[in-house]
This record gives sequence, structure tokens and C-alpha cells, in this order.
Amino acid sequence: MTNKESVKSHIIQAVETVKKTNPMVGSITNTVTINLVANAQLAVGGSAAMVYLPDEGEFLARAGKATYINVGTLLPIYEQTLPYTAKVLYEMKKPWVLDPVAVGIGSLRTRLLQQFKEYKPTIIRGNASEILALAGLWGLDGGTSESNVRGVDSTDSVNAAKAAAVALAKWTGGAVAVSGETDLITDGAVIAFSYGGSHFMEKITGSGCSLAGVIAVYATAASPLIAALTGTAVYNLAGARAEKKAEGPGSFQMQFLDELYQASAVDIANNPLAIEEV
Amino acid sequence: MTNKESVKSHIIQAVETVKKTNPMVGSITNTVTINLVANAQLAVGGSAAMVYLPDEGEFLARAGKATYINVGTLLPIYEQTLPYTAKVLYEMKKPWVLDPVAVGIGSLRTRLLQQFKEYKPTIIRGNASEILALAGLWGLDGGTSESNVRGVDSTDSVNAAKAAAVALAKWTGGAVAVSGETDLITDGAVIAFSYGGSHFMEKITGSGCSLAGVIAVYATAASPLIAALTGTAVYNLAGARAEKKAEGPGSFQMQFLDELYQASAVDIANNPLAIEEV
Amino acid sequence: MTNKESVKSHIIQAVETVKKTNPMVGSITNTVTINLVANAQLAVGGSAAMVYLPDEGEFLARAGKATYINVGTLLPIYEQTLPYTAKVLYEMKKPWVLDPVAVGIGSLRTRLLQQFKEYKPTIIRGNASEILALAGLWGLDGGTSESNVRGVDSTDSVNAAKAAAVALAKWTGGAVAVSGETDLITDGAVIAFSYGGSHFMEKITGSGCSLAGVIAVYATAASPLIAALTGTAVYNLAGARAEKKAEGPGSFQMQFLDELYQASAVDIANNPLAIEEV
Repeated sequence: MTNKESVKSHIIQAVETVKKTNPMVGSITNTVTINLVANAQLAVGGSAAMVYLPDEGEFLARAGKATYINVGTLLPIYEQTLPYTAKVLYEMKKPWVLDPVAVGIGSLRTRLLQQFKEYKPTIIRGNASEILALAGLWGLDGGTSESNVRGVDSTDSVNAAKAAAVALAKWTGGAVAVSGETDLITDGAVIAFSYGGSHFMEKITGSGCSLAGVIAVYATAASPLIAALTGTAVYNLAGARAEKKAEGPGSFQMQFLDELYQASAVDIANNPLAIEEV
Repeated sequence: MTNKESVKSHIIQAVETVKKTNPMVGSITNTVTINLVANAQLAVGGSAAMVYLPDEGEFLARAGKATYINVGTLLPIYEQTLPYTAKVLYEMKKPWVLDPVAVGIGSLRTRLLQQFKEYKPTIIRGNASEILALAGLWGLDGGTSESNVRGVDSTDSVNAAKAAAVALAKWTGGAVAVSGETDLITDGAVIAFSYGGSHFMEKITGSGCSLAGVIAVYATAASPLIAALTGTAVYNLAGARAEKKAEGPGSFQMQFLDELYQASAVDIANNPLAIEEV
Repeated sequence: MTNKESVKSHIIQAVETVKKTNPMVGSITNTVTINLVANAQLAVGGSAAMVYLPDEGEFLARAGKATYINVGTLLPIYEQTLPYTAKVLYEMKKPWVLDPVAVGIGSLRTRLLQQFKEYKPTIIRGNASEILALAGLWGLDGGTSESNVRGVDSTDSVNAAKAAAVALAKWTGGAVAVSGETDLITDGAVIAFSYGGSHFMEKITGSGCSLAGVIAVYATAASPLIAALTGTAVYNLAGARAEKKAEGPGSFQMQFLDELYQASAVDIANNPLAIEEV
């Protein structure tokens, strides 16, 4: 059913639809990487808008074609804004992407991420430690009861998070993307691996956050699995291309945005990929 | 009275005064593009400082030579900080620039922008949809009662906002800049058009926000009309020059800051310009 | 005791230890330059995490090997977060770096900086005006009772802040770095001068903030004096190298991050340096 050629043609369609429709995607995201999130969303053809207040979160949830919620640098108002916005998204059946950054740090973060279980994020993107900890927090198979999250970095490998990712995807009915050297994407039925990227992606802040923002852009034009795969593929492609022209993290980030912008639908679809049944 | 040669010589004077005096301009602005605002202000010769708290807004209003208020990503504290700061600026007759980002989204934004009517921002900069909606919110001629603002993007053309811009400028006694493919600047008596720029300015976040911040820098050294024109002209010049060297939005933003920094007063004054009476 | 060769070998050790251990350093810092702080910390080999909430500040204080507190753009929650986090750091004897940005502006900033006297920041980094004003606020020798801070810029020269820097270092038992054309670093016993850098560092926002963040990274692997010296040296080296390749502040920032990343331990140690007894 989900064979490689079909996946590729869906990726091409997602990329082209986004470039044609310039979809508006609202975000509530952290202050560290908020600029890169917006610029990455614009580079692939989306339109970005960021807010903090509850009624503005609701506005973007209703007006946008998808929404991105990243819990990176929580402010007190998030206690109201995030559950309220997530509830609207869930009730309207609008796609939304969750980046559970640094799950396990702080009581508000824990409470918010627990509430999100009910609102079933369409796509969850995190590193292996975050995916393991979120599954654990939600009491799902494969999760860990103790977080190995170290600040915002992962201490676990992508494969160790496979069962947790599948369990999360089965719970939400959407997709999960586990970022790492090789990226794992699953919708609970199939598991895809996406290859490429660059060691410099660990040397700039926000490669993960902005990937999730870009996945939200593709979620306006594709199924959760295809959106997660398309975002991951364009990141792996642009990362590999940018590394060849970069002499450090500064030039890498600049080149990376250029490559995100230039990447063609066909090249994104042809970025190395493997698919297996769960 | 306002002929082209006189305008050009005033632009030259504004640019040179800023480079000589390194004026301090305080900003209360959104978290998405705050870094670009500061870097653009520094690139043209200003000094930047950003705050959130009421008494700090007042401090910058008093200490700075001009102030920039951008309502992009409102935080709860803005309810106190923004009216308080705007009132101080108005009472001290100090120039201030308003960017009514995303007017129409959320109740606090609407309330704040309504209050600003009384405090008459010296210069208002927005895209066509924002200018139309702000004039509508203030009950002025040419405004629209319903916002066509889509997130932070414009869905209206610059010329459609001409009457609204003139009405706003007449109300404030200052100037209004409508950003678009061709930019329209008016003080209610004359209308100027500024040409140039780049399609990449839509592909990076903050070209509008940072333009308004740069206009605030020039407002320390020129009339509202000249300040708005000078900022717009250097943006159009730097945008056109940067595009020639750019391969995507990443390199464009880098080149753009370099060109902002390098642009000479004469080149800025000679950037294509048309002027007509209202 | 603190001769140049010994200092150089300690610098080499600090740089190498950081690259080997990738230490996690939490920050509570301003929104203007938060992205550059994180990217600079990553470029030299550290790991970055930023928060705003009290219990998250405590978490990072406990989990990180050092912490960075920058009072640039205060939010209301900082009233709780900053003293609470600083107290934990002090009680745990963990190294922390304070950047007293814009000391003198606003009542909360003044109150917070007064409280920090008790929690003795391991390293204080600021421009001359900030160091003078902080020493004055703390009632130490060499301080000024009136702040000459102009927004975030210095109006005083580094040498004018020598006595204040020494007094602060003696009070905290740590080190103080005064940034300027020539940088002065002292632990109260010796005074070191570090040379190099670039005029472009004044033309980008955050060169000071991110330096303090990088010093916090080195504070995980060296004494306060050596950490401050190492951070300052790599900034002076990378700044001078980046300037040669830059055509404006945009390309300077990009090149600067590349040079931070590429700088070898030996080159950092060999960056021009002078040392004298107090």
C-alpha cells in the first residue's frame, strides 16, 4: 500500500502544493529559534505568524491551515494559551505539530504535555530522548518513565525510540518523526527512514525546531506521514548540500536556508529513503 | 514646495546625521524579528535597545531620540507597557514609529491600537492591509471596517491603501509608509513612491519590521516624511543590490545587512523616487 | 604565579576540555540576542538551553555545569526566576556568569542586580559603563553612583573601569571581564589585557551577550579568570579573522561564527595577551 514510488509522488505533490498555495501556518514557539522557524517556513513556500496570547492562538488555529506548537521556552501565559489552542485545533480537526522540547524539565511543561495527550497532535517531532519521554509521560508502550533529556539534546539513539514512536502514532492516529543521524518517521503502520543531513545541524540551534515548523507547512497539503517525511527529506537534502559549501556553522545556516529555498520537488522526493512495515 | 531635489538633499542630510550621531532608539518589538530590527538599526548607524517593562519603556522613551513600537507578538505586560510608553512619547513630543502588525487579530491588539489613535504616532508603517485596517479601526476615511490581514501578510495592494494612508497622516500630523512592491509614503500633503527592493524581501521574516525600526532611526534626524522616505529608499536600494548577490533567502539576508551598512547617502537619495501632490 | 606561559596552557586545556565534553550550559537571557548566544555556545563546543520559569531555571542550574544570566530584556517572571536561580547556583557553588546589561534602567533591573551581590556571580562581564555602575550599585570601590549606561552601549573606557572591576572580583572571589577595544580581565589579583577583535563587533547586536554565554561554557572547564580570558581571546581572534573576510555586519556575523568554530586551542592561547599584577 505504502510503496516507495507512491510515497515519492505524494512528496512531490506536497512540495508543489505548498509552493503554489503559500499556506499560512501559525506557531507558538520558543524565543531561541523563532526567527529560524519563520525563515525556514518561508523558504519552503509557507507563510508564518507567531503569537503568545490565548485568543491570538485561537485566531491562528482557526485562520491557519495548520499550527505548530513548540514548548521550548515556556512563558507563564502558555499555561492558558497552549491547552486552549490545542483544544481548538483538535475540535476543528485541523492538523497541528507538537515539538515536545525538553520534556521532563519543569512542572508546567509536564502538565502541558500531559494535557496534549487528549488533543492528539497530528504530528509529533522530537529527538529520541524526547519521543521516549513523551511516550512514557502518556503511559504508552515503549516509553521511559524517566527522562533522559539533557537540556535540549538527545542521549538516546533513534532506533531505541522506535516502539515509542509507533505507540505515539497509534495513539494520535497521526505520525511521529524521530530526528537523529538517520531519521525515523512512522504513522504506526509503516516506518520510514530518511537519510542525509549534516553534522552541522547539531552545531546550529533550531534545526529540530524549524524542521517541525516546516513539517507543519507540509501538513497543510499532505497526510501526516507524508508531511513528516517531506519535511525530513528536504532537511536532509538541504543539510547535505549546505555542508558542502559551509566552512562552519555560520555559513552552514546561511547555505541551508538557500538550499531549502532552492530544493526541487523531485530532488526532495529522491532523497534517500527506506520504508518497512511495522 | 516638496520638490524632488529638496527631498534628495534632506535624505542625504538624514543619512549623514545618523552616521555622525549614532542616535539611540528604543524599541518594544516582537520576538520573531527583534534581532534583525536591532541589526538593521545598527547597520545604518543607529544604536538599539529593546525592553518589555513599563518603566523601562518610559526610560527609553525619555532617553532615546525616537522610539519604535511594533505589536507583532504581544505579551500580557504589553497591556501596561505600550499605552504608557506611547503616552510619554506623545506628551514629550518625541518621534515614534508604529508598526501595526496583524491589526485585527486578538482583543488586546485591537485595544492597544485603538488607544494609539490618541497618542498620534509620528510615523506609521505597514503593508496595505494593515494600513487599511488601522484607518478603519480609527474611523478614518479610506479605511476598511473588516481586516483583510492574513496573519502578517497583506492581501491588498499599496494603491488601494492610498486614501487610508493620507487620512492617517492627516490625523497624526506625521507620515505613513505603505510597504509593497512599490512603496507609498505620504504626509497627507504629498505622496511619494519609492522603487526597488527584491522579491526576497517577502522570503525573509522581518523586512517590514526592521524597515520600521530603521525609519525610527532616521526620525531622530529628519521630518516624518523624510525619515519614512529615507528608510524606504535604503531598503529598496539594499534589497535590489543584495538580490544580485543572493542565491536564496539565507544569503539575501546576509547581503542585505552588508548593503544597508555600505549604502552611501548619495546613493540612497538617488534611489528611484516619484512625488505628487495629494 | 600567574605567568603568561601558565595562562596559555590553561587556556589550551579549557578549549580542549570543552570540545571533548560538550558541557551543557543553561541560560536565562534576553530575546534580542538569544539565538546568537546559543549559536556561539554551540560553535565553541558547548550545549545550550534557555528558559524563563523559576523551576526551569533551577533545573538548569542543577543539571548544567554552569549557568548564564543576562538581564537584557526583563520580563515580569524574571522577578521570581532570577533570584531563585542565582540562589541555587550560589548554594551549590556552581559557576555562573552575570551580564548586567543596561544596569540603571528600570526598577526591577536595579532590584535584581542588587540581590545578585549576595549570590556572588563567578564571572561578571560587561562594558566599562556597566562595570562602573554595578560596582556603584553594590557600594564597592571604583564604582559610580550614577549610571553612564546609554541603553546598552558604553560611554566609558575600559581603563576607567579598572578599579571597579578589581573591587567586584575581590567581592565575588571570581573574575570580571570588561569588554572594550582592549578587553580587561581580572580576578582581583592579576589584570590581563586581551587584544584583537573588530570594529564590526559594535555593528552587530549581541557580541557582548554571546561572549558572556561563551565564557559560561569555558567556566565549566577552568577557573573564573581562565574562563573569562579564554572566551575573550577566542572572540578577539575570531573577530579579527572574520573582519578580513567581511564586507559588512551581515557577512561579519556569519564569518564570526565560522571562525569561533574553527579556532584551535593553540591559536586561542596565542592571541595577544598582557598580564600584570593588580
